[in-house]
Amino acid sequence: MLLNNITIILAGTKHPGNIGSAARAMFNMGLDQLILAAPQCKISDESYRLAKGGKVVLDSARVCKNLKSAMRGFRLLVGTTGKSGGYRAQSFSLRSLVPRILDQAAQQKVGILFGPEDTGLIDDDLQCCQLLIRIPTQHKANSINLSQAVMIVCYELLMGRLGRDPARFPKLASLEQIEAMYSQLETALREIGFLQPQNAGHMMLRIRQLLGRAGLEAPDVGIFRGIARQIGWYAGSGKK
Amino acid sequence: MLLNNITIILAGTKHPGNIGSAARAMFNMGLDQLILAAPQCKISDESYRLAKGGKVVLDSARVCKNLKSAMRGFRLLVGTTGKSGGYRAQSFSLRSLVPRILDQAAQQKVGILFGPEDTGLIDDDLQCCQLLIRIPTQHKANSINLSQAVMIVCYELLMGRLGRDPARFPKLASLEQIEAMYSQLETALREIGFLQPQNAGHMMLRIRQLLGRAGLEAPDVGIFRGIARQIGWYAGSGKK
Repeated sequence: MLLNNITIILAGTKHPGNIGSAARAMFNMGLDQLILAAPQCKISDESYRLAKGGKVVLDSARVCKNLKSAMRGFRLLVGTTGKSGGYRAQSFSLRSLVPRILDQAAQQKVGILFGPEDTGLIDDDLQCCQLLIRIPTQHKANSINLSQAVMIVCYELLMGRLGRDPARFPKLASLEQIEAMYSQLETALREIGFLQPQNAGHMMLRIRQLLGRAGLEAPDVGIFRGIARQIGWYAGSGKK
Repeated sequence: MLLNNITIILAGTKHPGNIGSAARAMFNMGLDQLILAAPQCKISDESYRLAKGGKVVLDSARVCKNLKSAMRGFRLLVGTTGKSGGYRAQSFSLRSLVPRILDQAAQQKVGILFGPEDTGLIDDDLQCCQLLIRIPTQHKANSINLSQAVMIVCYELLMGRLGRDPARFPKLASLEQIEAMYSQLETALREIGFLQPQNAGHMMLRIRQLLGRAGLEAPDVGIFRGIARQIGWYAGSGKK
């Protein structure tokens, strides 16, 4: 397959038909890695009926009990959103991010995450994404069927892949490293009172967004962990 | 609607669900003119269930008993095909034809024709088309679900119509703000001993590089200044 470093991750999917249609779309466009994270339905006969040639994608699909386990091994996690308010205002138009996704996928594993049919990705899941993409629609008609959204993303990836040479790409840190860093940073920022109970969630989200855009490599993570450690040490000793 | 000179014409469609899904896709992308030519099924409850916001498209859909009557009033008829043999070898990649379709639709009615689910457009229908488009797929996986194909075509038309890709243009902070932030951050990181005389220059460069990639906006700068201020306050009080 052409795009075998890119995995489609469907989180909390409710309809077996959508899983099948998504698998067919993936197959059309040359993607074959599918993960179901905390699905709320099973791969069924209807999934297979709709998958057609995408049967091979369903056959090898992995099921994970939550997003955290699904994320394991990925370097770049890209979320999809139809909404644009608040935190989601930080999203990029799909087409503009395709080159970056493909560059990364030339060497490292990239996951593209789709939320449940009714709600889309919830905040907790969006937080884990370094980048957010949005499929342009007409105004007030942004609720795209899940498998249609998967199709458009896969189509853009194939179109990008057909016309491109791999450029220089960063070697991103693992998502486990990233999460450990945020956790350590959050603790440190609480200790020095930068994070207050009423703003901690919002602030950490902002920090995640801006560092997500940067595309952190392992040494970058080391820098922030070093700062957090030093803050913690200082705050700890300051308290004594 | 944005693209009201462009009509989607579904010929010989067999599944009501596909009509509904196509209507939803059209609605997402700002097309509202739908014609069913010689359909082999009726618009049903299932069509409406799948159409969601595309209900308005279904409500105003026209049904014609054959393609000839459906074609009336159009100036340009564009056929879609997944196959590439014989006559169909004359097809263009969808994206390459979008500008031409949009130019035409700026003044005159354009129809885009999709064949039945199982066969695609038959030769008699293809003959009526002045132009043929093909949606690129991976090799030997060119059988795309009808409503998915409608979605990709409508998506490309919307993207073309939007002209420039509505990428998110960040409103970057001023360089003065950025420099003031780095200066404040450097002071704070020295105070807590993260920066040492022998590594300070190198570390600040790394930090500048990674934050530079993020593309900091004014609120982002505010976050880092807030952190630095809080570190400074803490370090200061710790020393006392």
